[in-house]
Amino acid sequence: MSQHLNDTICALATPPGVGGLAVIRCAGRLAFELCDRDFNSRVRLADAADHTIHYGWWEHDGVRVDSVTCSVFRAPHSYTGDDVIEIGCHGGPHVTAQIIRSLLDNGARLAEPGEFTKRAFLNRKLDLTQVEAVADLIHAQSRMGAQTAARQLAGGFTRRLAALRQHLLDVCGLLELELDFSEEDVEFVDRTALLAALTDGNAIADQLAASAASAEILRSGFYVAVVGYPNAGKSSLFNALLDRERAIVSDIAGTTRDYLEESIFLEGYTVRLYDTAGLRSSDDTIEMQGVRLTTSLVEQSNLILVVNDASLGKHHSDALVSSLQDIAGTRPIVIVHNKSDLLEDPAAFSEKGSVAVSTIRGTGLESLRQALLEYARSSSEGVSDVLINGRQASILRDVSASCSSARAGILEGRSMDYVAVDVRAAIRYLGDISGETWSPDVLDTIFSRFCIGK
Amino acid sequence: MSQHLNDTICALATPPGVGGLAVIRCAGRLAFELCDRDFNSRVRLADAADHTIHYGWWEHDGVRVDSVTCSVFRAPHSYTGDDVIEIGCHGGPHVTAQIIRSLLDNGARLAEPGEFTKRAFLNRKLDLTQVEAVADLIHAQSRMGAQTAARQLAGGFTRRLAALRQHLLDVCGLLELELDFSEEDVEFVDRTALLAALTDGNAIADQLAASAASAEILRSGFYVAVVGYPNAGKSSLFNALLDRERAIVSDIAGTTRDYLEESIFLEGYTVRLYDTAGLRSSDDTIEMQGVRLTTSLVEQSNLILVVNDASLGKHHSDALVSSLQDIAGTRPIVIVHNKSDLLEDPAAFSEKGSVAVSTIRGTGLESLRQALLEYARSSSEGVSDVLINGRQASILRDVSASCSSARAGILEGRSMDYVAVDVRAAIRYLGDISGETWSPDVLDTIFSRFCIGK
Repeated sequence: MSQHLNDTICALATPPGVGGLAVIRCAGRLAFELCDRDFNSRVRLADAADHTIHYGWWEHDGVRVDSVTCSVFRAPHSYTGDDVIEIGCHGGPHVTAQIIRSLLDNGARLAEPGEFTKRAFLNRKLDLTQVEAVADLIHAQSRMGAQTAARQLAGGFTRRLAALRQHLLDVCGLLELELDFSEEDVEFVDRTALLAALTDGNAIADQLAASAASAEILRSGFYVAVVGYPNAGKSSLFNALLDRERAIVSDIAGTTRDYLEESIFLEGYTVRLYDTAGLRSSDDTIEMQGVRLTTSLVEQSNLILVVNDASLGKHHSDALVSSLQDIAGTRPIVIVHNKSDLLEDPAAFSEKGSVAVSTIRGTGLESLRQALLEYARSSSEGVSDVLINGRQASILRDVSASCSSARAGILEGRSMDYVAVDVRAAIRYLGDISGETWSPDVLDTIFSRFCIGK
Repeated sequence: MSQHLNDTICALATPPGVGGLAVIRCAGRLAFELCDRDFNSRVRLADAADHTIHYGWWEHDGVRVDSVTCSVFRAPHSYTGDDVIEIGCHGGPHVTAQIIRSLLDNGARLAEPGEFTKRAFLNRKLDLTQVEAVADLIHAQSRMGAQTAARQLAGGFTRRLAALRQHLLDVCGLLELELDFSEEDVEFVDRTALLAALTDGNAIADQLAASAASAEILRSGFYVAVVGYPNAGKSSLFNALLDRERAIVSDIAGTTRDYLEESIFLEGYTVRLYDTAGLRSSDDTIEMQGVRLTTSLVEQSNLILVVNDASLGKHHSDALVSSLQDIAGTRPIVIVHNKSDLLEDPAAFSEKGSVAVSTIRGTGLESLRQALLEYARSSSEGVSDVLINGRQASILRDVSASCSSARAGILEGRSMDYVAVDVRAAIRYLGDISGETWSPDVLDTIFSRFCIGK
């Protein structure tokens, strides 16, 4: 590992593809030296001041590759904590490939996925929850998700965990002192205060663990399964909902096309519409089989949208709705009465939990968007300064269980030896979250979410 | 235009998508002020030294968006020649969208396609051939193309044009002096030297214009039409050629998938394989119709690859080859004898202009790749320090025609008034190439090749 950390690594740091600008990051002991071999400028990077930018030509083996800027970050004042050069070049694939190849020629190696951020962790520039915040910032499917990840990156969550851990450490120290003097029957730790600390730990851990589902909405988007009998107008509804927003976000955020085909963007939320193809067939006999195929989609969704052909009656899809209710459980079902332009009294169709729309006239779509946004918002409430993920939720449940067990031990009058074991476990778990204690396996799992260049 | 130039503009400068890092460029009179409103750091950007990098938090309306670096470029020492801030943030679409939105809120406007580079031109940081080199660097489909564009960006071509133009300007000055003194019948300009200068101009312009076709190969790739009777093994050949190279370039250069499906990368060249679907049908009667459908593809290609099922005989595709020869003209036709594993004597099939391969055994593929690379190389010879494009070639032909006309005038003993008109035209055309003279229409055409952020 230490040999590994001594390597000088490089990779494309900006997204792949074509753009005005691309940045290649080179980090490690020899970063300045390896870059200086090809960077033709008035300034030697090795001599350059920290946090300065230098203009020059990248030339390798006598071949001029591009006019570039080199930004100098001296250890430890860099992203990874190493000496780092960021090479800004024109964003063409054959330009970036040439620069990366020349760095490899000069003795650097290609960075592994997430290796820059891993070094930042190992060099104590970021703790594990901040590392996870970086991944969430990059991949967040909602503005709120990105903002929460930014707060998490700022370390608010880390400080809360650290405060809780410190509190338990103090308590534990006194408990252990008390155990050393157990012959003398002295109480160093006030039992009421200890119980209060454990109750606190319990509540905080439970509350944070419970926010994982909401966090997942901010992180990955609000999943909506769109269900309906054939010809109810699901496709038209899809297209009507997609229209305008798509172009805007595509221009600004540059998200990929594959993904936009199914998503709408509502005030910073990504709402992912999943068409349930199983109900598309026009053959009535396979409809219920379609429902069964739909089951897994519905189970994974945050909300079910039933598209009803209102021209066939308000209750035309009732059988479908009731069959879905069993699968949906507590998940909301919203009925969209489509083709409201064919109705004499569309108002009669507007009631709680349903929206009347006409995809042809474009009426009711704003109400539907608003309803989806409200559901997305209320489903992601309670997330403050951290996007709890699966790893953290699992550890938090362990923290909570340890606190509960310690409390029960005290209340049941068990030996303080047992209680101390539980408190120590809670402390160790809290350390696992932020990475004060870590194993290579845990790091591997976390960095498997990263790509090369991060 | 001047009001327009006073605007402060911003855009994502790096390719859209997900990555470790993204860069947003903000350029214009208010760049420092607009960024300072949201950049929470120990340093005010307005006070910061030129070419320095500052770390801080991007916060808009009290919301923490991301931890960022701001790089300071003071006019005129920036890409555009304006005051420029480059904001380096985490490469997530919801992060970059928030920062761009906050800059728009603060009073910047979204940059138009190519507007940063257009400003660089208007502020005399780049001439037109350098502007075109930027586009070619970014979009080049070959390493050689990118390298040539880099030399063009360095200004070698500009200097050659300027030297030629200056030479003609000197000659023209003397010619005009001579015309002023025409009553006195003095020869200020040595006719032999004048003819030599015009012959030079003629030759240089012709040679450069002629390199446009080669430049197009470096810029866009070497186009290969793959033709063959049904079941000759075209698809297997496609896949066999694609394999390994694909993954490598995709990792390093991050080119898109759509494009890779048809391209192989050979020592810096992009070879674009076009399958001619017209010949895919198994119905023999429509084969010749298929050939007709293939015509336009063959006409646009640099080389035609005929896949012959060698197990049906060496001459099985001769009729197809001869029908293609009419369309191909001087373009090379290479015959690939596929299924060579079924032959008793594969060596008998190897002759000039043909390669025997077995896609099943993987034999002969390296020879075929080598042959394609040799053809790509020889077809793109003669390109030195400029990738002549259509606009430049067209103007260069005008330069050449003007020089020819002036020479003819001298040799025919016509009045020097007429000769001077031609020389002046050649000078004006040369100025059009580098943009010493330009029209808004020409700029619009050139910048239509650019995207937002360049």
